[in-house]
Amino acid sequence: MTAPPLPAARTVEALRNQVGAWKAAGLRVGFTPTMGALHEGHLSLVRLARTRADRVVASVFVNPTQFAPGEDFEAYPRDEAGDAALLAGAGCDLLYAPTVSEMYAPGFSTTVNVAGVSEPLDGLARPTHFAGVATVVTKLLLQCAPHVAVFGEKDYQQLQVIRRLVADLDIPVEVIGGPTVRAPDGLALSSRNAYLTETERAVAPVLHQALVQATARLRQGGSVSHVEAQAAETLAAAGFGPVDYVEVRDAGDLTRLGPGSVLGEARILAAARLGKTRLIDNLAVWS
Amino acid sequence: MTAPPLPAARTVEALRNQVGAWKAAGLRVGFTPTMGALHEGHLSLVRLARTRADRVVASVFVNPTQFAPGEDFEAYPRDEAGDAALLAGAGCDLLYAPTVSEMYAPGFSTTVNVAGVSEPLDGLARPTHFAGVATVVTKLLLQCAPHVAVFGEKDYQQLQVIRRLVADLDIPVEVIGGPTVRAPDGLALSSRNAYLTETERAVAPVLHQALVQATARLRQGGSVSHVEAQAAETLAAAGFGPVDYVEVRDAGDLTRLGPGSVLGEARILAAARLGKTRLIDNLAVWS
Repeated sequence: MTAPPLPAARTVEALRNQVGAWKAAGLRVGFTPTMGALHEGHLSLVRLARTRADRVVASVFVNPTQFAPGEDFEAYPRDEAGDAALLAGAGCDLLYAPTVSEMYAPGFSTTVNVAGVSEPLDGLARPTHFAGVATVVTKLLLQCAPHVAVFGEKDYQQLQVIRRLVADLDIPVEVIGGPTVRAPDGLALSSRNAYLTETERAVAPVLHQALVQATARLRQGGSVSHVEAQAAETLAAAGFGPVDYVEVRDAGDLTRLGPGSVLGEARILAAARLGKTRLIDNLAVWS
Repeated sequence: MTAPPLPAARTVEALRNQVGAWKAAGLRVGFTPTMGALHEGHLSLVRLARTRADRVVASVFVNPTQFAPGEDFEAYPRDEAGDAALLAGAGCDLLYAPTVSEMYAPGFSTTVNVAGVSEPLDGLARPTHFAGVATVVTKLLLQCAPHVAVFGEKDYQQLQVIRRLVADLDIPVEVIGGPTVRAPDGLALSSRNAYLTETERAVAPVLHQALVQATARLRQGGSVSHVEAQAAETLAAAGFGPVDYVEVRDAGDLTRLGPGSVLGEARILAAARLGKTRLIDNLAVWS
């Protein structure tokens, strides 16, 4: 049995008309922004949104402003027909797929910057990335105006940046993080896994394994700096290229842990290259 | 006959409860953000909002982040009781007067930046000013969620910055500019006029006169650079201190006029010190 075709909105106006009609009928609206190339991780977010809302919108928009020159904006996988079928099967009610010119009209010149939480980790490795994310997510949330928005914990720093800007700018939406979905061998699902060669795919789960080991060592009392160094060594030994970071951070604002920090509120985050692909992952230290 | 006391909301929640109740009753809501120390200019904006909405909210919030160190944040005139009485008399339905900590909770770290239109003129003279304005206005608009928001043309560059960010971030509100209200001698009403000595107050109308002269010369075919220089000389001769700028700019994006520019879409803007007070004013070149 195939799901019926998914309605698509291509403009802010069409999106608002549909969401407005649902709200006028007293329905709660959930929203999951994505960049497409959907996998089970995204679909789990749609299902999570479904548990909190009567109708679910998913956006597919590969946002150029969060890619730096030389990153994979052009190569980023795109398959709208496949995405739409998956979304319909997961219980999504509307696909929002705006064009780049619908999102960034001529003269566009506004940027949302989040200091603090966006600065370390991926903020160091990709200096313009989170301003692009913060700006497009602000726009998407204000375009859709959902009751609840769901983002994956896979992009944990992004999730915390979004929580921060939603609170700071008083965007009236509840932000929910959805758990990372993993392959049976532990590799976090990611659209970028499609870039991996067969050999690299066999090595990739070491990223998750290294974080699992690290959290066990931390819970057993290992020192943060020692555990971080061990995890980085594990990655290098397995064949990962430059390790951008393996760091234990406060789960809320991503500051470094200090003497008063509580392990139960810590998160370990890592980013490393495997061949040409950059992989990220993270875990709660105490979960 | 005195107007009844004006209800006041001190928190985002109280504001949203009242605006939400009005919207649920099918009423249109207008909004005028101010920094208090209200005069007839502000009240004209409340009245203008009234013509476009069933209920009008005015905020009074002296926003610390749009003042640089050494500017007049501490000295800025404050008189909430007087403001409330004036607002009630002008037909305002709700005063929104949040505290600084309600607006900027601990950990606040988000900034809205508008490139382009916020960079010249006051953007050069007050480098952090418009980021503070853009951020607080984004917050206020998202807190209040009015149908229409009214800002004074007196702060013309600010108005254009706000139009830009509202379009760019997809904030669902109609922005309207209200005409500058002037004293009989032409001086634009401003809360900062209260800083002027009697002698300075007598000189202050020269700012408006110089702009009126300049627009007449431009309409008669005077060259932009010549007319700008003449206006600056007029100000200096009258006793104005440093003239920050007298410039003719595109009325939309405030870029410099080029060969293809149309005088009918130009604005002349000026800022100059008179003693310790910084005065600004502007006029449409062809109105």
